[in-house]
Amino acid sequence: MVSAGDMRPNEVAVQLPEASAVGLLFIGVIRTPWTSPRDCPHAGREDGPVCRIEVSEPWVPALDGIEESERIEVLYWLHQARRDLVRQSPGKDGKTHGTFGLRSPIRPNPIGISLVRLLAREGSTLSVRGLDCLDGTPLLDLKPERCPFTPGHEI
Amino acid sequence: MVSAGDMRPNEVAVQLPEASAVGLLFIGVIRTPWTSPRDCPHAGREDGPVCRIEVSEPWVPALDGIEESERIEVLYWLHQARRDLVRQSPGKDGKTHGTFGLRSPIRPNPIGISLVRLLAREGSTLSVRGLDCLDGTPLLDLKPERCPFTPGHEI
Repeated sequence: MVSAGDMRPNEVAVQLPEASAVGLLFIGVIRTPWTSPRDCPHAGREDGPVCRIEVSEPWVPALDGIEESERIEVLYWLHQARRDLVRQSPGKDGKTHGTFGLRSPIRPNPIGISLVRLLAREGSTLSVRGLDCLDGTPLLDLKPERCPFTPGHEI
Repeated sequence: MVSAGDMRPNEVAVQLPEASAVGLLFIGVIRTPWTSPRDCPHAGREDGPVCRIEVSEPWVPALDGIEESERIEVLYWLHQARRDLVRQSPGKDGKTHGTFGLRSPIRPNPIGISLVRLLAREGSTLSVRGLDCLDGTPLLDLKPERCPFTPGHEI
């Protein structure tokens, strides 16, 4: 992970504007085997290790019915990522790309999205496969996989 | 859209915890034909109307290279949605579902995601098809469609 002062050749940072008044709610925490960005896979795999999603109160009742979905989208906050780069160099080779042309964690709102397979729910905890984030990553949202044919799952 | 005091039969609201210190950056605005939640489609369609995504400074240089993606994920803040319901009734019939079993805009962090077709970029503005949000919706992020075979597009 790139720390705040750490720049690669030709990367471009901007002065961060003030954040809006809108604050995020951390609704739980994600438990994975990866404690260092070096170990973390670049993308989740459905044959990857089982990870746990621990939902906090008062949000646990919002899980009711989630077992009906075989796959769910998990949104999380990439809490170690810097937010000020508009051009970045994933290859560390001096060749840079615009941030919105990449799925790098470094972006103005570092929100990660994984589509995972739901294996089990036990109370406030989900067991899933397909994550790619660090242990301790704050949870933002859980949504059933998009399916236009399921009534009630409109957006 | 449900206003803050508006509840349907059997829905369950919670006392919202304090938001984390993490603030979102609104990085632009989305222009669509829909000014009222009543008119808004429940899901975007690739044969839907052309909508515009206007990216603000200092983020415009981060668009460089986005034209290489035929489809992009758009993340936005559903600014009119309440955040405190753990059980909700999409059918307004007294039958309620847990929030994380639905893709409703009402959720603790009302972040919407659409996969859209990118038609054109002109400077700071993208023309796309496939959105489903209200005119004036704040933009949070743009990511190229997930593709494990494209180098540099890892997460």
